[in-house]
Amino acid sequence: MISRDKHDRMANAIRFLSMDAVEKAKSGHPGLPMGAADIATVLFTRFMKHDPKNPDWADRDRFVLSAGHGSMLLYSLLYLLGYEDITIDEIKNFRQLGSRTAGHPEFGHAAGIETTTGPLGQGLANSVGMAIAERILNARYGDDLVDHYTYVLAGDGCLMEGISQEALTLAGHLKLNKLIVLFDDNQISIDGSTSLTDSTDQCARFEASGWNTMRIDGHDPDAIAGAIESAKGSDRPTLIACRTTIGFGAPTKSGTAKVHGSPLGAEEIAGARKALGWDAEPFVVPSDILDDWRLAGLHSAKERKAWEDRLAAADAETRGEFERRMRGDLPETFSAAMLEYKEKLAAEPPKVASRKASEMALEAINAALPETIGGSADLTGSNNTKTSQTGPISAEDFSGRYVHYGIREHGMAAAMNGMTLHGGIIPYGGTFLTFSDYARPAMRLASLMQIRSIFVMTHDSIGLGEDGPTHQPVEHLAALRAIPNHLVFRPADAIETAECWQVAIESRKAPSTLALSRQNLAPVRTSHEADNLCARGAYELAGSDDDARVTLFATGSEVEVAMAAKALLDAAGHPARVVSVPCFELFEQQSDDYRKAVTGNAPVKVAIEAGIRQGWDAIIGSDGIFVGMTGFGASAPAPELYKHFGITAEAAASAAQKRLAELG
Amino acid sequence: MISRDKHDRMANAIRFLSMDAVEKAKSGHPGLPMGAADIATVLFTRFMKHDPKNPDWADRDRFVLSAGHGSMLLYSLLYLLGYEDITIDEIKNFRQLGSRTAGHPEFGHAAGIETTTGPLGQGLANSVGMAIAERILNARYGDDLVDHYTYVLAGDGCLMEGISQEALTLAGHLKLNKLIVLFDDNQISIDGSTSLTDSTDQCARFEASGWNTMRIDGHDPDAIAGAIESAKGSDRPTLIACRTTIGFGAPTKSGTAKVHGSPLGAEEIAGARKALGWDAEPFVVPSDILDDWRLAGLHSAKERKAWEDRLAAADAETRGEFERRMRGDLPETFSAAMLEYKEKLAAEPPKVASRKASEMALEAINAALPETIGGSADLTGSNNTKTSQTGPISAEDFSGRYVHYGIREHGMAAAMNGMTLHGGIIPYGGTFLTFSDYARPAMRLASLMQIRSIFVMTHDSIGLGEDGPTHQPVEHLAALRAIPNHLVFRPADAIETAECWQVAIESRKAPSTLALSRQNLAPVRTSHEADNLCARGAYELAGSDDDARVTLFATGSEVEVAMAAKALLDAAGHPARVVSVPCFELFEQQSDDYRKAVTGNAPVKVAIEAGIRQGWDAIIGSDGIFVGMTGFGASAPAPELYKHFGITAEAAASAAQKRLAELG
Repeated sequence: MISRDKHDRMANAIRFLSMDAVEKAKSGHPGLPMGAADIATVLFTRFMKHDPKNPDWADRDRFVLSAGHGSMLLYSLLYLLGYEDITIDEIKNFRQLGSRTAGHPEFGHAAGIETTTGPLGQGLANSVGMAIAERILNARYGDDLVDHYTYVLAGDGCLMEGISQEALTLAGHLKLNKLIVLFDDNQISIDGSTSLTDSTDQCARFEASGWNTMRIDGHDPDAIAGAIESAKGSDRPTLIACRTTIGFGAPTKSGTAKVHGSPLGAEEIAGARKALGWDAEPFVVPSDILDDWRLAGLHSAKERKAWEDRLAAADAETRGEFERRMRGDLPETFSAAMLEYKEKLAAEPPKVASRKASEMALEAINAALPETIGGSADLTGSNNTKTSQTGPISAEDFSGRYVHYGIREHGMAAAMNGMTLHGGIIPYGGTFLTFSDYARPAMRLASLMQIRSIFVMTHDSIGLGEDGPTHQPVEHLAALRAIPNHLVFRPADAIETAECWQVAIESRKAPSTLALSRQNLAPVRTSHEADNLCARGAYELAGSDDDARVTLFATGSEVEVAMAAKALLDAAGHPARVVSVPCFELFEQQSDDYRKAVTGNAPVKVAIEAGIRQGWDAIIGSDGIFVGMTGFGASAPAPELYKHFGITAEAAASAAQKRLAELG
Repeated sequence: MISRDKHDRMANAIRFLSMDAVEKAKSGHPGLPMGAADIATVLFTRFMKHDPKNPDWADRDRFVLSAGHGSMLLYSLLYLLGYEDITIDEIKNFRQLGSRTAGHPEFGHAAGIETTTGPLGQGLANSVGMAIAERILNARYGDDLVDHYTYVLAGDGCLMEGISQEALTLAGHLKLNKLIVLFDDNQISIDGSTSLTDSTDQCARFEASGWNTMRIDGHDPDAIAGAIESAKGSDRPTLIACRTTIGFGAPTKSGTAKVHGSPLGAEEIAGARKALGWDAEPFVVPSDILDDWRLAGLHSAKERKAWEDRLAAADAETRGEFERRMRGDLPETFSAAMLEYKEKLAAEPPKVASRKASEMALEAINAALPETIGGSADLTGSNNTKTSQTGPISAEDFSGRYVHYGIREHGMAAAMNGMTLHGGIIPYGGTFLTFSDYARPAMRLASLMQIRSIFVMTHDSIGLGEDGPTHQPVEHLAALRAIPNHLVFRPADAIETAECWQVAIESRKAPSTLALSRQNLAPVRTSHEADNLCARGAYELAGSDDDARVTLFATGSEVEVAMAAKALLDAAGHPARVVSVPCFELFEQQSDDYRKAVTGNAPVKVAIEAGIRQGWDAIIGSDGIFVGMTGFGASAPAPELYKHFGITAEAAASAAQKRLAELG
């Protein structure tokens, strides 16, 4: 048991490391670490199951700092608890180039940072995914191997963001009772008191969606401990509203917006030292306090050892699969399974929508990979995300492999990220491509974190038809391709869809989006190649660069338009070739030689895509011909829209012929 | 008073028009119109203040169909009530090319469509903006001129989307008691029963944020009327949860997901005709019922006349301003005021961040235009969105001109759209550029609707520094430029900022985003031109095409980098010119001659922008040199980041020189 005095000094260590680091960096957010230090100290000294020496322990409790601007809270904890990645020098280098202690916590910078946070609400939604992952893996591997809590520290900002509603309603519905949210209820946001803009009773709000809630004094260690203890016994997820004073200890600025996001200044820090009785120099933690923290870091070492023993005692197959899944490796049989599936397709190439082709590919993938967990934001039948292997999970039964995410695209994407981060799961989830806009902040974070979340985005153009321009993506391919480290696939037929899915599954360091058609597509790949042609981003599909006067580049549903244009051009005596471009990003990564060979030497280049031109110049040149959209779509049957907007083989062929004539 | 029998027949008219139109289109959503027909009938026959013959009546009640997929409900109503834009032929042409009856309601297609809906939750958030606009205009013009309700029909989808939380918490806080939300509580979503994915008690949820709530039988006309009557007397916004049966009247499919989004089929429709005692042919409304509806459409004619009389009786200045604002015209003095402000700037060009320059411009704009309403998503001090004229509004006092939107970027953008749609207001609202991702679905709709919402996006690059890659936009300029009909401005100094603001304010048919720097920028425009150079999208800032060997194109904070690069190149004997490109979209709209002249003939073209290349090829060509970002940013002081990522005058000059050498 930690005495109150010791608790206070341990919490103050967090406060002063945070104040000092922000002061030295001349930048950062001292308010949250100072205000939430008591909460964090209780959590990490009395509850957190983790092992700083083995930070990747699969069954550790997860701690998510959803209020990521309070990064110094996390860095202080990691340093104090003995995580090797965060040294005192890293703390001193807070927010400097190359440091592990970035302005906001960045996944991958240091062990112990479970997710990248800062964009508000994301961490909370990630944590819902982590808690779902825990339950799913628990259902598969039992309490012996998977049985941990997910703790979240969230602020007013997280709870005001809409994504928090999507996350909490899903968590409440699934009764994720091992999810415990500590709400740093300091009533202050950047513009001032939260009463400027909000009157929500957060406890009542969470209760309305089935949560257990409590209100406590966030500076009373016993109250905090009692609340967490009680939360652990609940059959529902718990929100603990901890009333705190932001910047606790700052003599004149605490409790105000001034302490939120700026250095306190030397005078205020000196005042805090006096007020809290802290004599140590900046960045110095008195050795007895550091010892106490390091000791706290050892609390779960025995528990981890016992867990290792249980893992060792498990049957070899279970252990092997568990370890493989947690590493994120694929079974060796995977590529053979995909090849076999492709062979089957090549034998009788189906004319199906690529969303249907995706379902067929998933049927093969889900059979080969027990770790895939599907889902959709209430468009299951349209996204074709459900296969024979994927029964839905529910509060009563987590043995399924499908999540009905509800009409919550943003929450879905962020929860998927949480599952990926948890490990042991490869999540994929669907909505319409146009609604990628709703999920975009989470999709961006997946890219930044370099994690394998897979977004299934169907109805990928005006090809969706009558639903009209609100539902027709036009700029979305370009907008998603703009995100660094995001693989955007737009396959042209069933074989390409299988290949793209395989690359997405095998890309451990990048998320993927599959843009898929609503409408049926004629097969363009009919022969079987062992090679995954889509893995190179673009490839020559038809014709030859030897004699081609025109190269037609296209993606997805427009590849068959390009093939028809080629036929027209060939017939008119202008040999043409077709290059399919399922993934810009991967094509960009190829060697210059390969790219030049694929781009080819034909004097006329035409790109066909039912989206905007932006991004295509990199392939066809700024003098290339683009056949696509220049504005929003319209509401009408799809074939009429293609004609109306001039995305036809005739239009492409005639533009190419006109250009050829100009060239003489 | 309408008898129950008459009510039923009037409601059935909506049901059959909807069924028949969806059936003929072979596409659409019959479930909601059939389920919500009773609600809509009560609302429009007993409450709605509107005049089909004068649909733009400023003080009409607004009706927002947030569940936009139920568009046939709205089209049926407009036809039945006598709105001239929606004829029976338009109903028959539902979802066909060129019809006014698009798949989802589209603002601008027909009078009576108050906003474009379909992307779920947007309409609800629009309505919060409309209700805010009503209160603000009421505070200015009094009950005589502005005193109306905003009614919303929302479904489960709207309420599951996170944006609904942002909207309802803001509405509850502001006690928008003239906002009445009719929740079509049919417990069905596309994947099946909402119990698959949600357990939220919606009434309890809304109450937690200060709403008045009721639960009623959504098929009982008197219960509906009683609830609306009671809501009108509340001092808080009201949610009326109307329990309905989706697809009411469909004999085998009602109450199931099957009736949500597909034609019912001839047999089911025949069954419905039988069940509901409806003998009329498809698209025929028995004349007595049509007469009753048309009569209902005349209910408010007298009230409108009385309102016209009050407006006529108002003093000329008030009336003039009111009418001008509602038309969306600017006062004639506006351009002179902006010119005067520019002259002042030119006399002493300040070295300020463009976010500060924006505040200065707003100081002039807000003085000239009483209709601007500012705000920020809790970043007021950072976005510099508040000026001396803009005190905050609150539940108690709507005479202010500033909205503390809270940490609700998406809700803010959608509420701004609602204000714009209401009329009488030009809203602008701020957040960090990177969080435009959170607001993107609403920003897209502003573009699609062609309305003047103005988004102030500060901290527009790695120039924000230490907050790191989560907060550093990299792809956002490209992603926003990708949206059709969206003006993305990135001004280089105070004068450009003033010019861009002026164009944004004057662009009645397009929303604007101003991307603004955190860091100070040296003035690049020091002389005074009467012309608004930014209005042409790009212009020659320095040097001359006569002798230039290099043209440097840049935007915003990188224009001063380009100017420094020009100095280096000039000194090295390679005359250079600089083109500032504050707005791609506007540049694209210029004549070929102008564009050619600005692009110039220098053999080497370099673009400098602290974002990704995507989109720039249209200006510099695919062989042009790009100095910018290729991936995510990092956490460090801004000057270090510019060096680290090589966005410097030296890098630009040396790349240009290398290319010149290659060219020989």
